Amino acid sequence: MSQTTRVLWVNPVGYPDYDAPMGGLMAGVKAADTEIDVVSLSTAPLPNHLEYRTYEALIVADMVRLARMADAEAYDAMVIGCFYDPGLEDAREISGRTVVVAPCQASVQIAANLANRFSIIIGQEKWAVQMRERVEAYGYAHNLASMRAIGIGVPDLQKDCELTTARILEAGRIAIEEDKAEALILGCTCSFGMNEIVQRELGVPVIDPILAAFTMAEYLGSLRRRFDWSPSRRWSCAPPPEAELQAFGIFSAPPPIGNRVRY
Amino acid sequence: MSQTTRVLWVNPVGYPDYDAPMGGLMAGVKAADTEIDVVSLSTAPLPNHLEYRTYEALIVADMVRLARMADAEAYDAMVIGCFYDPGLEDAREISGRTVVVAPCQASVQIAANLANRFSIIIGQEKWAVQMRERVEAYGYAHNLASMRAIGIGVPDLQKDCELTTARILEAGRIAIEEDKAEALILGCTCSFGMNEIVQRELGVPVIDPILAAFTMAEYLGSLRRRFDWSPSRRWSCAPPPEAELQAFGIFSAPPPIGNRVRY
Amino acid sequence: MSQTTRVLWVNPVGYPDYDAPMGGLMAGVKAADTEIDVVSLSTAPLPNHLEYRTYEALIVADMVRLARMADAEAYDAMVIGCFYDPGLEDAREISGRTVVVAPCQASVQIAANLANRFSIIIGQEKWAVQMRERVEAYGYAHNLASMRAIGIGVPDLQKDCELTTARILEAGRIAIEEDKAEALILGCTCSFGMNEIVQRELGVPVIDPILAAFTMAEYLGSLRRRFDWSPSRRWSCAPPPEAELQAFGIFSAPPPIGNRVRY
Amino acid sequence: MSQTTRVLWVNPVGYPDYDAPMGGLMAGVKAADTEIDVVSLSTAPLPNHLEYRTYEALIVADMVRLARMADAEAYDAMVIGCFYDPGLEDAREISGRTVVVAPCQASVQIAANLANRFSIIIGQEKWAVQMRERVEAYGYAHNLASMRAIGIGVPDLQKDCELTTARILEAGRIAIEEDKAEALILGCTCSFGMNEIVQRELGVPVIDPILAAFTMAEYLGSLRRRFDWSPSRRWSCAPPPEAELQAFGIFSAPPPIGNRVRY
Amino acid sequence: MSQTTRVLWVNPVGYPDYDAPMGGLMAGVKAADTEIDVVSLSTAPLPNHLEYRTYEALIVADMVRLARMADAEAYDAMVIGCFYDPGLEDAREISGRTVVVAPCQASVQIAANLANRFSIIIGQEKWAVQMRERVEAYGYAHNLASMRAIGIGVPDLQKDCELTTARILEAGRIAIEEDKAEALILGCTCSFGMNEIVQRELGVPVIDPILAAFTMAEYLGSLRRRFDWSPSRRWSCAPPPEAELQAFGIFSAPPPIGNRVRY
Amino acid sequence: MSQTTRVLWVNPVGYPDYDAPMGGLMAGVKAADTEIDVVSLSTAPLPNHLEYRTYEALIVADMVRLARMADAEAYDAMVIGCFYDPGLEDAREISGRTVVVAPCQASVQIAANLANRFSIIIGQEKWAVQMRERVEAYGYAHNLASMRAIGIGVPDLQKDCELTTARILEAGRIAIEEDKAEALILGCTCSFGMNEIVQRELGVPVIDPILAAFTMAEYLGSLRRRFDWSPSRRWSCAPPPEAELQAFGIFSAPPPIGNRVRY
Repeated sequence: MSQTTRVLWVNPVGYPDYDAPMGGLMAGVKAADTEIDVVSLSTAPLPNHLEYRTYEALIVADMVRLARMADAEAYDAMVIGCFYDPGLEDAREISGRTVVVAPCQASVQIAANLANRFSIIIGQEKWAVQMRERVEAYGYAHNLASMRAIGIGVPDLQKDCELTTARILEAGRIAIEEDKAEALILGCTCSFGMNEIVQRELGVPVIDPILAAFTMAEYLGSLRRRFDWSPSRRWSCAPPPEAELQAFGIFSAPPPIGNRVRY
Repeated sequence: MSQTTRVLWVNPVGYPDYDAPMGGLMAGVKAADTEIDVVSLSTAPLPNHLEYRTYEALIVADMVRLARMADAEAYDAMVIGCFYDPGLEDAREISGRTVVVAPCQASVQIAANLANRFSIIIGQEKWAVQMRERVEAYGYAHNLASMRAIGIGVPDLQKDCELTTARILEAGRIAIEEDKAEALILGCTCSFGMNEIVQRELGVPVIDPILAAFTMAEYLGSLRRRFDWSPSRRWSCAPPPEAELQAFGIFSAPPPIGNRVRY
Repeated sequence: MSQTTRVLWVNPVGYPDYDAPMGGLMAGVKAADTEIDVVSLSTAPLPNHLEYRTYEALIVADMVRLARMADAEAYDAMVIGCFYDPGLEDAREISGRTVVVAPCQASVQIAANLANRFSIIIGQEKWAVQMRERVEAYGYAHNLASMRAIGIGVPDLQKDCELTTARILEAGRIAIEEDKAEALILGCTCSFGMNEIVQRELGVPVIDPILAAFTMAEYLGSLRRRFDWSPSRRWSCAPPPEAELQAFGIFSAPPPIGNRVRY
Repeated sequence: MSQTTRVLWVNPVGYPDYDAPMGGLMAGVKAADTEIDVVSLSTAPLPNHLEYRTYEALIVADMVRLARMADAEAYDAMVIGCFYDPGLEDAREISGRTVVVAPCQASVQIAANLANRFSIIIGQEKWAVQMRERVEAYGYAHNLASMRAIGIGVPDLQKDCELTTARILEAGRIAIEEDKAEALILGCTCSFGMNEIVQRELGVPVIDPILAAFTMAEYLGSLRRRFDWSPSRRWSCAPPPEAELQAFGIFSAPPPIGNRVRY
Repeated sequence: MSQTTRVLWVNPVGYPDYDAPMGGLMAGVKAADTEIDVVSLSTAPLPNHLEYRTYEALIVADMVRLARMADAEAYDAMVIGCFYDPGLEDAREISGRTVVVAPCQASVQIAANLANRFSIIIGQEKWAVQMRERVEAYGYAHNLASMRAIGIGVPDLQKDCELTTARILEAGRIAIEEDKAEALILGCTCSFGMNEIVQRELGVPVIDPILAAFTMAEYLGSLRRRFDWSPSRRWSCAPPPEAELQAFGIFSAPPPIGNRVRY
Repeated sequence: MSQTTRVLWVNPVGYPDYDAPMGGLMAGVKAADTEIDVVSLSTAPLPNHLEYRTYEALIVADMVRLARMADAEAYDAMVIGCFYDPGLEDAREISGRTVVVAPCQASVQIAANLANRFSIIIGQEKWAVQMRERVEAYGYAHNLASMRAIGIGVPDLQKDCELTTARILEAGRIAIEEDKAEALILGCTCSFGMNEIVQRELGVPVIDPILAAFTMAEYLGSLRRRFDWSPSRRWSCAPPPEAELQAFGIFSAPPPIGNRVRY
């Protein structure tokens, strides 16, 4: 059995600029025998963020195509790198033996081991309803103290990191003091690099969704390798028959990868 | 104000064969001043059914594109013609002033006015988990007596209508007698033409999802015309900014329509 | 098959003053082939509003008697014209082939097609608990952003319409800005005539419960005519046996109608 | 302060035949200083049972009138003697300082102190949906193992007590062995006199709803006397203003009592 | 059958100072034929309050030992005298024929008969999450208007009763006016002696948990005596086999009682 | 920063016989730089299994003591090695910077990444209610297809492993075919060594709770080391003040360890 855990990290946008900083971040924390491939998409036209359902709809098919590829290329785990977890259920159906992980689910699962109630710091009020539905679907509604928005859109989160951090600190303080949050989750993969300072300042665990999703993928990928705990394929987890996929030519085109770097 | 209610019915598959029989069915029950356009998709490759999440993922982007078109062409309402209601939330975000309707939601809303508890007759056990999640998301979990599968896949539902009807009768009887269902919903838009006989035989209301979704679209479309009850655009309902859509070129391509017939 | 949809609108009070303005409102929006009978009650003593459970209890038996009459006189649909939906489940049991509709359920079903979260503007704080229970029973608790009271009782809602409208605007603004409501429902059938201006001012859909309930009755009534989707009579929907009703003389008295006008 | 706890037991039917046996049953278990008045109704026409919502609707106004009387005559507690708990919320609004109790709520509250999961033995399948809604409204859905019907209507429950008991034993056994019930509740006040033998035979607690509701009324009535724990009158618990009640003449007629016996 | 109801009240701390005032309080309200034994614990080391889960964990085993003793000494009911209801489910398993009661469950069951929504006044914010979980487990989450903290720890509640009362009044007013509470529950057994004045001042029912739990124990204990409604021993309620208990020597040591006084 | 992740595995029984086989199992799958200490308890009297709440109550205080020790000895994570997860919330309060993990929570979190619905195979029907409550508390009730009992008590699970495996296979098949489970969880830490064969035979993921809990502890422990994601200490997560702990002498005795082996 191979000792290497192979993780495919997908930035589900047609925009490679975050591939390197995210890949570097993960490379800095990965286990010695983990191999990470970071990809972003080649499909056009695509937005550089997914704040709207409209945009997410545009990349769901690609998540399915990449899950198919992940299995074909024997990745242990694949991550859909957006906190809306777009296309997660779809990708999981077709991912074969590859475990599919996403930041929101990974973050709430970790947080629930560290605190009874947590808040999610989001960029814009717009996101609240949809993310709350995600949290509820994962079973963590009773742990959610609040969603608190900082009024900064995804494309601007890394523009002025001091400002973003200041706003997260402010929103986090309110979440803790008024909503009685006991831990915080940063609700966007583009707020990387800020959790440490927030955690130190506010004195509660602050979950960064990239670190959460990547390490969860590494962990679940290693379980797959060690115990063959790969995705179920019964009942609602059954994929389309191979013959039908080929008859329709569903996966005849190459995977929609624009950029791909190994770490 | 125009007196005509205009409905766009979308068959979310790359397969026009059902456009005519479904269009004919709706034409036979529509109000005099309703105009129906039935379309299916041109995107390739596409399956001829959506029994799998993998397939639905392939058409979600098209639902968004058609919702955008529906608004541009001033349809009062658009229907996503599959009982999984794929892409409903996404399409609703970008549909402008067009109301977006889908068969599962329409069917359970009608059924709840006629019975306290109903069952959904599905083609295959595979569908149960995902459809139950839909019913729960709409708030009707407490009305759901059961899901009962007849063991026939979508492409075969209209192949031997006598067999399909016999299986629906059998499953419906069990739903009524064992699960205490008081009404039935046929859980696939491809089981059209069978609800009357089942209703007559079993003596409970039997909701056909095409009739439910089409008339609900006609109804909500007429509310929009009469009272301007068009979709909210606040908070989670806000669409992407127009400038951004144009900058990304999101809707620069023509809508993915393969077949389009007016009734 | 008759082409006319016949709707019975019941004002469940012993007070005919609102029959004419409500009837006129509905007559102005009905389909050409719809016939509306508006009635109020003759039972005495009766209040002129139903803000208290005590008062509703006094008219529940009449709702049952009128539902019985609605079936006997072959109405397609009957509406219980109060936003508490008093006696809805009881009337539905005995309404035979007539569909029974009520404003709260109709309003939330429509609103859920237009927005993810809505608030209900109520007259007095007193109403909140009971109406929330209604909304929960219909399955829409997760869509309810808030209840906001304007501090005006039912008998005064039409006394100074400018004041009422101003208060609704104020409460609606708070519901939208603080509670993140995306649509509004006016929580009393006696606030008619105000939704248009509120909708225009606040820029979100504002559902008037008379328009919602009447058009839903017209719609469901037409489904009954077209597809025979009349109420289930199985299990919890079964009515008392006719022989028993006659033995007890339950419906031997004439229906408790005080005023009856056709539109 | 009076040492006597006064309980008003209402048989909500126009049928006095059960007044004496029920009164005798309660008299046999009451505390020395408890005084019980058993009444049935004089309103006509009325059924002799309430298996249908239609019938319950006919007596809800009377429950309100009797609750008003209970307060006027200074009863500590009043019981609505039917396991559907008809009109409970309405009566509670107008009962002044009298606590209003009903059999279903009393039974589930007691049972939850004795077992984690219980089943309710009902007469007919018809009752299941409505009673389950009651149990859910009281917060005990998670304790409900099942409802099991014995196929005997209310008027026949006391006709052949051996048969009824045999059927309860049979249904109870299934509830325990198949549904894993740990206690049973008899779901009709007309199945009195049978709980002892069922309890002895089946070896689990068997709650009789008359004993449950009467003793709960005696208990809560004594709390009222001792600690002035009478019903709240704030917010949703506020009754109509006295001036309005008199203006409408709501309670001008004498209470609808057909039979009244003290125990 | 004995006419005396025997209640064992356990103060689950190694601190007898409250035994006398609590015993006196109960003695003043008990029925003539009720006998109360108040005990506190001898286990060491023990805290004098249970504000922390850490402390509760230390006394759970003692609750089990005392429940065992309660059965052996034929108490009708035992009360675990802390509003966290620590060890309630555990004690119920081994209590044989003794009914085990606890303040939080007793209080919410009583309150739900008097009001639709109530708030719990707690000492410190720390308690909120755990107590809310209790309330939810008992099925009363929908009745809970809020938890409001007064900022006083358990050991200080009786130090300056005027201050404590003032704070309860202040928190209670906010609960009523802002959270729309219709009744209040005092969320600690150490706030005894204050409910009357709060109730008089605020005009809503104010439930004292000692009075609630003690009288509920007296009531349920009397049901046990009269109707043999003792705890179920089926399925999840089954205790360990006697042989096994003896083989392990589980109850070989004497019960951990430090102080024991009869009232 | 230390590179070694240190895990404390607690067998919460006074019975060291399983320490070695469990330790060996974990040693075989651990990461190279993980250090495992397996302990069982010295407290007497203690049972050799925890099938009853009575027994669990006896060891909850020890879980708190060991969590205190785990922090003092700088373990990264501690596991409470019983599928009831006894004392988990209590231990988490006092564990300082050590993450506390338990088998049921770990198993359902992993399973939810691999399947939409899973069943838990339990030893005896007795366990079902309590374990279902655990699963619900963690938020996974909607994922639970069923609990299926094999009729073997904890002390016998390893006596005849062939028999146990055969029973698990039988129960697992029913769970999959009848309850539509898509994955299985073995609901007892004493069923170790059987998941592989069951997984191979039944073709769905089969989660062994020791492997799940140990690897989750290793994973969360490594997160603590890398990102300082240690338990929150705000609000409901706050531990007792150190001064108070010392004043009461709560942790003055040595930890209740009977056997301790390093792997």
